[in-house]
Amino acid sequence: MTKRTLYLSNTPVEEALDKYIFELAEGLKVTYEKIPVTQSLGRVTKEAIMAKYCSPLFNASAMDGIAVISERTHGASEVNPITLEEGVDYIVVDTGDPVNAPYDGVIMVENIIEKEAGKVEIIAPISAWTHIRPIGEDIVAGEMLLPGKHRIRPMDIGVLLSAGILEVEVVKKPSVAIFPTGTELIEPTETPVEGSIIESNSRMFENLVNEQGGQAHRMPIIVDDYDEIKRQITKSIKEHDMVIINAGSSAGREDYTVHVLEELGRVVIHGVAIKPGKPLILAIVEGKPIIGLPGYPVSAYIDYDYFVRPLIQIMLGEKKIESPIIEATISKRMISSLKHREYVRVKLGKVNRKMVAAPLARGAGAAMSLTRADGFCIIDQNSEGVEAGELVKVIPYKNLHDIENTLVSIGSHDLILDIISDMMASSDGECLLSSTHIGSMGGLMALKRGETHIAPIHLLDESTGEYNISYLKRLFNEPMSLIKGVKRIQGLMVKKGNPLGIEKLSDLKNIRFVNRQRGAGTRVLLDYLLKKEGIAHEEINGYDFEASTHMAVAAMVNSPNADAGMGIYSAAKSMDLDFIEISEEEYDFAIPTKYLELSFVKEFIQTLKNQEFSDRIRELGGYRTDDIGQVINI
Amino acid sequence: MTKRTLYLSNTPVEEALDKYIFELAEGLKVTYEKIPVTQSLGRVTKEAIMAKYCSPLFNASAMDGIAVISERTHGASEVNPITLEEGVDYIVVDTGDPVNAPYDGVIMVENIIEKEAGKVEIIAPISAWTHIRPIGEDIVAGEMLLPGKHRIRPMDIGVLLSAGILEVEVVKKPSVAIFPTGTELIEPTETPVEGSIIESNSRMFENLVNEQGGQAHRMPIIVDDYDEIKRQITKSIKEHDMVIINAGSSAGREDYTVHVLEELGRVVIHGVAIKPGKPLILAIVEGKPIIGLPGYPVSAYIDYDYFVRPLIQIMLGEKKIESPIIEATISKRMISSLKHREYVRVKLGKVNRKMVAAPLARGAGAAMSLTRADGFCIIDQNSEGVEAGELVKVIPYKNLHDIENTLVSIGSHDLILDIISDMMASSDGECLLSSTHIGSMGGLMALKRGETHIAPIHLLDESTGEYNISYLKRLFNEPMSLIKGVKRIQGLMVKKGNPLGIEKLSDLKNIRFVNRQRGAGTRVLLDYLLKKEGIAHEEINGYDFEASTHMAVAAMVNSPNADAGMGIYSAAKSMDLDFIEISEEEYDFAIPTKYLELSFVKEFIQTLKNQEFSDRIRELGGYRTDDIGQVINI
Repeated sequence: MTKRTLYLSNTPVEEALDKYIFELAEGLKVTYEKIPVTQSLGRVTKEAIMAKYCSPLFNASAMDGIAVISERTHGASEVNPITLEEGVDYIVVDTGDPVNAPYDGVIMVENIIEKEAGKVEIIAPISAWTHIRPIGEDIVAGEMLLPGKHRIRPMDIGVLLSAGILEVEVVKKPSVAIFPTGTELIEPTETPVEGSIIESNSRMFENLVNEQGGQAHRMPIIVDDYDEIKRQITKSIKEHDMVIINAGSSAGREDYTVHVLEELGRVVIHGVAIKPGKPLILAIVEGKPIIGLPGYPVSAYIDYDYFVRPLIQIMLGEKKIESPIIEATISKRMISSLKHREYVRVKLGKVNRKMVAAPLARGAGAAMSLTRADGFCIIDQNSEGVEAGELVKVIPYKNLHDIENTLVSIGSHDLILDIISDMMASSDGECLLSSTHIGSMGGLMALKRGETHIAPIHLLDESTGEYNISYLKRLFNEPMSLIKGVKRIQGLMVKKGNPLGIEKLSDLKNIRFVNRQRGAGTRVLLDYLLKKEGIAHEEINGYDFEASTHMAVAAMVNSPNADAGMGIYSAAKSMDLDFIEISEEEYDFAIPTKYLELSFVKEFIQTLKNQEFSDRIRELGGYRTDDIGQVINI
Repeated sequence: MTKRTLYLSNTPVEEALDKYIFELAEGLKVTYEKIPVTQSLGRVTKEAIMAKYCSPLFNASAMDGIAVISERTHGASEVNPITLEEGVDYIVVDTGDPVNAPYDGVIMVENIIEKEAGKVEIIAPISAWTHIRPIGEDIVAGEMLLPGKHRIRPMDIGVLLSAGILEVEVVKKPSVAIFPTGTELIEPTETPVEGSIIESNSRMFENLVNEQGGQAHRMPIIVDDYDEIKRQITKSIKEHDMVIINAGSSAGREDYTVHVLEELGRVVIHGVAIKPGKPLILAIVEGKPIIGLPGYPVSAYIDYDYFVRPLIQIMLGEKKIESPIIEATISKRMISSLKHREYVRVKLGKVNRKMVAAPLARGAGAAMSLTRADGFCIIDQNSEGVEAGELVKVIPYKNLHDIENTLVSIGSHDLILDIISDMMASSDGECLLSSTHIGSMGGLMALKRGETHIAPIHLLDESTGEYNISYLKRLFNEPMSLIKGVKRIQGLMVKKGNPLGIEKLSDLKNIRFVNRQRGAGTRVLLDYLLKKEGIAHEEINGYDFEASTHMAVAAMVNSPNADAGMGIYSAAKSMDLDFIEISEEEYDFAIPTKYLELSFVKEFIQTLKNQEFSDRIRELGGYRTDDIGQVINI
């Protein structure tokens, strides 16, 4: 094994960024380019733009009618009409036609009486300049059309062209080369084998750069080879304004990036006090920024947001925009380290006038948490964490209107939540569903603290054999209701063909099991059944290995490292596993009665009762929907 | 002259739009297309997208280190280290490498002690699954990645690719063909002659369509020819989802559009009760929308906004977004007709906690008013107009933050205002200048009503010969100050070479004059001088023909229809006119003393004193800047 002697620094975020910007200096300067006006939408002017032509270009008729010599109309009235002769007293004009001396006014077509050919009668006089748009009425040559630092809009393009301007000098888009590196990386079009990682970060960066107004150039994947990395960087830094290298930014065996950058230029920062995102490289080669971003998608995104975005902003000449920060009540305890500032992805929802943030998966590899997040919760470096119910700072990514129209669900996971969420989002209504999965008991606790509207639960009362209702009676003081969901089959998921011949719970003793997390209804059921059969937790190999959704259990069982797990039929089916039925349970939605009147709760119940919904869950299999959508007041 | 028998209808806006949408029905339906994920930024999903692969694709090491069989680590401690053998007890892994049976846990490189080659020592046990990212931890195959009707963001692209999705079905961009029509139109690249109109509207539409998410196709200019128009429409309606024809939408001699559309399909609406924008055609050909937009740029823009935008929105499957409406105090009287709803472009500013709207040029041809506007003021159809100081409804186009950082200037026009505005916009500060031009007295009245921060004025006191100060003393009760501006030369602008030999004011009697509007300082000066020389207004031909800026007067004098006007040197110079010096005047800024402390007023004064500013006005010529930026308390 090669020695690893490098250690990452732990520089605070602002210090790292300020130092890098300071040392880059001229390397971030705004540059300009001349482009055709027709292609300038959204671009920012370098300096004030002056009109070349007047508009109108000449004195123009503002109406369809006749251009006349106004003096000759004087005295006309109904009792004393005046006859005008074409070519002598008037010429016919349409809107926009030039009107020149001796003609100095226009009479609208509606106000003339046609007599014989070439003769008209008028019954009212006009004064000079009537219905004439004088030259330069709209734009005068030399006049300022747009100021400097102006973002060009569609109407600006119209005005520029009509004033004779064909090209504009605008801020040049910073050109950013993006290199994915890693021998294990494959293009998304290739078929993955074990050990393959589908390269997707570069496509996220490419679109982040372009969305922000830069010009991204996604380069082919580079293998982990010192010389190849060096060759590619050397070439691209001459052609682009910035280079991003992803990943290899850490200090591992094959993390060559930092060594290459030290040889080619200067590494300003290697390692920042941010989580996820610590293994970041900020380097300067030939005066230009070269940034090594970490490989985990969440780390990569956060480092992009805090380090790449501000640099592009400077190169675009834009003012720094502070992210808006709101306060929200966190729905789950989170422990954090004093070593770094942490960014936790959260779902947001407004419950009873209180903004609630429900944390999503915290791992650096949890790309889905980026997609599902409504915002980032910031845990400061000087904090050891937060307790459930505490106020936290959140940078929201969703607009307030959508958040206020979101039904918040915290509790047990089931695939039907995805379907409801999709149907509500796809409907014509404005209501959305946001669901976070922390198990049935966790959901009821969140409900008790007023941090969710509904809690999906499937909790067995061991004394009565009844589901859910006794928990609501026992735990709540306020009036509660239960929206009936689905009956679902719980069982053991085992590998296709059941090679180990697993039939019943006692067979779990000698195989590798995957459990669900504490508080999950499935785990409560398992514990109940194990107790009934007199099997101790310790006898189950893997009892302490927890996965947090049915689907995650199914995926594990489908891998070489586990043999069985407990869960629902639809999850087993989706991973093509065998399924041994053990029990049927009731998966319902607990809700304080007072919320039943909320519009998004009504839409939620409507969705449950919808025929399309029944059809979609029948496709999944393993469910019964006898009383779905019925409301029981406890 | 051809007979014009067509009359425009006067259908109210909402009625016209509702009828058209109803009759188009299927012609507006949302359609979909499959595109590569890498090109899907900003597009909207058709339906929920499910993962094809898990992520990670296999149980993967979360750390650089060694994969071990956890059982064999049990019992390890500092006093009792355990030695492991490569290939037997462990294999070396980097982050992301697969970990398979019999290996079931990873020890970080920092926690191992390398002994001889192929042997390491550990001093702590680990449990199964330590530092392993189980298959599907982030994404499970079959899991919903994105719901339907979801706008794809950069992080979504990353997630889709890493879950094996290469193509997505998204809402198709409505394809919109845009035809400029008119024999008088020329391309912006051509050199205009008298009668030419530079075609620019289509470029505004093209960018409006693309900005909104459509796919615009700007077609070549069509001349006013019935058969040619018919041929082009017939062809393009088969290839596109919508056709825009601009202009020829009115009822004039050469407005063929409506006749062609009646032949090819059905005209649903011809004429709406909106100003500007009345001559609009809403037609249906082969079930698809064909819209005739009027030729004047402001009419065209407003009709686009009220009729084309909502159709594209429907074809994109987007929910209708109501424009936000704010209330503002209007700074000028506006008379409107009961025949239509009117949209007046306004500048917005916040003066002493009051939102103020200053109307810009109201003409349908005033394209600059679109570019300069901060919003639209709506005058309802049932209103005959509004008085200065009344509250009006405004749709703002600028964000509130910028409006609150805007110094509002209402009063006399001078070219230096453009320069100040440009310099403030281009500076690193956040302050902006918004100036509206209604003459010196108009500015003072607006100042008195609390509708502007400053009023640029040049008002001569005929009794003392002194400028500005006596007006402030006489008109205001509160403490006022004067920020000194420039001394500028006023004189007569005449055509190049002065062909009529104009030398003095009495020479104006026999030529065609252009005056400034009532209340303008230049007009006050002219009246004072005329009176001194005993010349009556009636003796000046053109005394009643008013232009509202110096530049507009200069442009008029440069046209065949006027011979002289009074104004400043820089305006004459910019149009290459001769200039006969008449007088020097003081152009200053009146301001209530209490506003001197405002940050944008301070930045304004700093800008006046800036060397770059002096340099730029020296280039214009005709100014002196002895005491610029000095503040005099009245």
